[in-house]
Amino acid sequence: MLIKQLLEAGLTRNPSQEVVYGDAVRFDYAELSRRIGRLAAGLASLGAGPGNTIAVMDWDTHRYLECFFAVPMAGMVLHTVNVRLSAEQLLYTINHAQDDFILVNAEFLPMLEEIWDRVVPGKQLVLMTDEAQPPATRLPIAAEYEALLARSNAVTKWPDLDESTRATTFYTTGTTGLPKAVHFSHRQLVLHTLASRSALAGPGAGRFNHDDVYMPVTPMFHVHAWGLPYVATMMGVKQVYPGRYIADRLLTLFEREKVTFSHCVPTILQMMLDAAAARGQRLDGWTVVIGGAALAQSLAKAAMTIGIDVFAGYGMSETGPILTLAQPRSARSEVPTDQEIEARCHAGWAIPFVQLRIVDEAMNDLPPDGRSPGELVARSPWLTQSYIGDEQASQALWGGGWLHTGDIAVMHADGCVRIVDRLKDVIKTGGEWVSSLQLEDILLKHPQIQEAAVIGIPDPRWSERPAAVIVPKPGAALDADAVRAYVKQFADAGAISKFAIPQEVMFADSLPKTSVGKLDKKLMRSRHAQRSQPQTSGTV
Amino acid sequence: MLIKQLLEAGLTRNPSQEVVYGDAVRFDYAELSRRIGRLAAGLASLGAGPGNTIAVMDWDTHRYLECFFAVPMAGMVLHTVNVRLSAEQLLYTINHAQDDFILVNAEFLPMLEEIWDRVVPGKQLVLMTDEAQPPATRLPIAAEYEALLARSNAVTKWPDLDESTRATTFYTTGTTGLPKAVHFSHRQLVLHTLASRSALAGPGAGRFNHDDVYMPVTPMFHVHAWGLPYVATMMGVKQVYPGRYIADRLLTLFEREKVTFSHCVPTILQMMLDAAAARGQRLDGWTVVIGGAALAQSLAKAAMTIGIDVFAGYGMSETGPILTLAQPRSARSEVPTDQEIEARCHAGWAIPFVQLRIVDEAMNDLPPDGRSPGELVARSPWLTQSYIGDEQASQALWGGGWLHTGDIAVMHADGCVRIVDRLKDVIKTGGEWVSSLQLEDILLKHPQIQEAAVIGIPDPRWSERPAAVIVPKPGAALDADAVRAYVKQFADAGAISKFAIPQEVMFADSLPKTSVGKLDKKLMRSRHAQRSQPQTSGTV
Repeated sequence: MLIKQLLEAGLTRNPSQEVVYGDAVRFDYAELSRRIGRLAAGLASLGAGPGNTIAVMDWDTHRYLECFFAVPMAGMVLHTVNVRLSAEQLLYTINHAQDDFILVNAEFLPMLEEIWDRVVPGKQLVLMTDEAQPPATRLPIAAEYEALLARSNAVTKWPDLDESTRATTFYTTGTTGLPKAVHFSHRQLVLHTLASRSALAGPGAGRFNHDDVYMPVTPMFHVHAWGLPYVATMMGVKQVYPGRYIADRLLTLFEREKVTFSHCVPTILQMMLDAAAARGQRLDGWTVVIGGAALAQSLAKAAMTIGIDVFAGYGMSETGPILTLAQPRSARSEVPTDQEIEARCHAGWAIPFVQLRIVDEAMNDLPPDGRSPGELVARSPWLTQSYIGDEQASQALWGGGWLHTGDIAVMHADGCVRIVDRLKDVIKTGGEWVSSLQLEDILLKHPQIQEAAVIGIPDPRWSERPAAVIVPKPGAALDADAVRAYVKQFADAGAISKFAIPQEVMFADSLPKTSVGKLDKKLMRSRHAQRSQPQTSGTV
Repeated sequence: MLIKQLLEAGLTRNPSQEVVYGDAVRFDYAELSRRIGRLAAGLASLGAGPGNTIAVMDWDTHRYLECFFAVPMAGMVLHTVNVRLSAEQLLYTINHAQDDFILVNAEFLPMLEEIWDRVVPGKQLVLMTDEAQPPATRLPIAAEYEALLARSNAVTKWPDLDESTRATTFYTTGTTGLPKAVHFSHRQLVLHTLASRSALAGPGAGRFNHDDVYMPVTPMFHVHAWGLPYVATMMGVKQVYPGRYIADRLLTLFEREKVTFSHCVPTILQMMLDAAAARGQRLDGWTVVIGGAALAQSLAKAAMTIGIDVFAGYGMSETGPILTLAQPRSARSEVPTDQEIEARCHAGWAIPFVQLRIVDEAMNDLPPDGRSPGELVARSPWLTQSYIGDEQASQALWGGGWLHTGDIAVMHADGCVRIVDRLKDVIKTGGEWVSSLQLEDILLKHPQIQEAAVIGIPDPRWSERPAAVIVPKPGAALDADAVRAYVKQFADAGAISKFAIPQEVMFADSLPKTSVGKLDKKLMRSRHAQRSQPQTSGTV
């Protein structure tokens, strides 16, 4: 099971199918295959060979797609660099990964220039640019990507690698400490592709089929764009690469290229909805999978109202990423009911070859009754086997032989999984677990609230108490008491515990986010702690 | 990658989905899973264990489906016995496979009784019957299947086998000599399942999806019923098992259970069409894949006329079996055109992970131009690696590192494969290759011809010459000259070579077929040789 077989399947099925990049580039799968062959030959001409690590810093482009195939097919490791990392983190990952080559979009040259003096010497740079005239840089550029392809004779015979050969690596920047490197083999990526394909295929809502037009709206450095470029290529569907995400450009590509299937994080979906509203554009016929963060019901409803067939999926960097999908099981109502919307926002059902358990701290199974929260642990053949060079974190990840997601979830009797919270974000108060996610979902339904985050703050009596950070909508007149009174209604109705009513309500202009767009609750907690210290030390 | 993961995927997705057997049995996937666990426990209680070989002689039943899972999941090898073999062949395969247990449907007890004295001692028998009162037999029955399940506590923890563990074995009775044993591992069957699922899924004609209702009409001993019970189970679809194939029963089940997806050989399709005509029943909404023998255009047209979404697939015992599928690529016309019908009768396109080549005798590639015939050779991760205990045949099968199908084919520019003939059935005459299949297809379009077979007969001048064996329709008035004149029209029109006009035309009441329903041309050739010998020795 090798990545070359995914390319071959698409090429066999549909050699004249299109690959599109922005407004600039359009070619067919036969040419894609030749360009992949030329890229491999070009890199080899620069001295790259099996076992080398090839880093890529790029937006979502056809060139990145070519790297997805050429690099592992030639027996090299593709390092998909998170270009949203801080300079220090970027430096750390490039050195830690021992990159031999860095293929860099001209727009990211300044980031590299900033750290170049501290990059371990010996790495070669290949420049990727859409401009005829390459930009000035003090960095030593070994070759320009298109020139390299133009002067190379395409590889046509690819090695029959061992399927356990490492194909990709990238860094997860979560919680604490330095970024941690996950890694995936050919076999793992092929199985993830086949299982995702099997779960997504079919008639009805929430599906990805051979007659779809695919456009990723998730960075390709973010867990292989959730593996879906591999699925799309194997299926031989038309693929549209949007470059940097600019809402207007995305919506224009959607319309012009007749895009039918995409995936993104909630923040990007919100950005596209805002832009569509401004343009007066409907988005009918677009199936969009949401992952990376919880899909709020308010956002799902807004998306469905404008025509999007939206639903959530669940996974993480360590899991390749897809573990579950919340595809709707029944036909869509004219006006979606609250139940339908809620069902689309769950994590959903395990895809084939994924085993899930909800366990307590002693790894005992909790009942699948929809109301017994525990940690979600997983097995499947494509989960990262370790963090490279971090034995301790690897052992913690795989404690008891199951991958620990660090998420608190419940399972319903039909196997549907609902994420309740991050293990480290759940608020332990008065002997109960309050889900920060559920509370955020309630807050986001308030007509005057734009964004909301709920964190736990230390409390000597209750262990923790919830605090809400609110970004009001422009022109909103909202105070802390009004927010508490609003939440209290849900507690009175029995939807949440009375312990969930926020002890503190703070207002902000924006919420801090991590490099992949998730709420940075760690930072919010530490900011709160710093702010509280001098004033109310010991009595928060 | 283990077979237990296929069951788990279906169970996770749809625990309340139905499995139906004939008129007698109906239960859900949760019960299927329990019955599989009880079967494994029951066999263990009789002394069966990992590495044992468990033979099954049954029609297409829910019990056979249970064996498809329980036996390999417990680390044992499932031997799917071809119940249409002659007594001698049956004896050979049971002894050669070293079966430890034989699970036998009561209807096949007489076959076993006939050979039992020569069966290597030590094999235990488990009786499968729908009757409350087991039939009298002199054979030593160790247990009755349902009683065994009833007294066993279901296995729930299945071993984590090595994925290369052998899962199934069965015998191919082709050409010459003794039956040859092929074999497949867990990994191979899982990959075959995933690739078939990927190729079959999607909207439009010729598809198999999660909302379909599946009924096999191919014997489960015939290459795992083409692997589709595994696909159906992984998807969690409703499954209907028809028992012995009785046309009326099949059509009643189709109607009552709302069957939408099946597969069979041409002979069975013809039988069902005849029965449907007699009942005045249309078969709309039924997708049927045809394999095992070439799908004649006349038969495809008849099937489409009555409502069936029919298309061909291609594969063989050695290939698991699916290599290609000829799914229609465009929407269906109101009245199917000849072109549409022809396209559905090709072998079609390689499914994912299948590599195909058309080669000459020196293994050079022939051009994909639709008119350069050569042997079709294949690679994919699920092809049998050898014939058990037959080194010489295994080497011939895998000559040059590719599996030799023994079929002559052409490839079109779009990758579509058309089988021209069996390597051993193609007629070499006057320096040309005449396809017996093409000639049969032409003959079958004649309104007065029911069945037709074309064989090569030795000829001192032309090397070989074609001879046709014809089964006329009831009441037809047809002679050899009329048949030759009919074929000559096609030669005059340039559709076939003039060398293709049959030298001899013989009439028969029926055509000899092999145990899996294919035309037995070897027997026809030897009959012809015997008949010709005394009369026209040397001058045929």
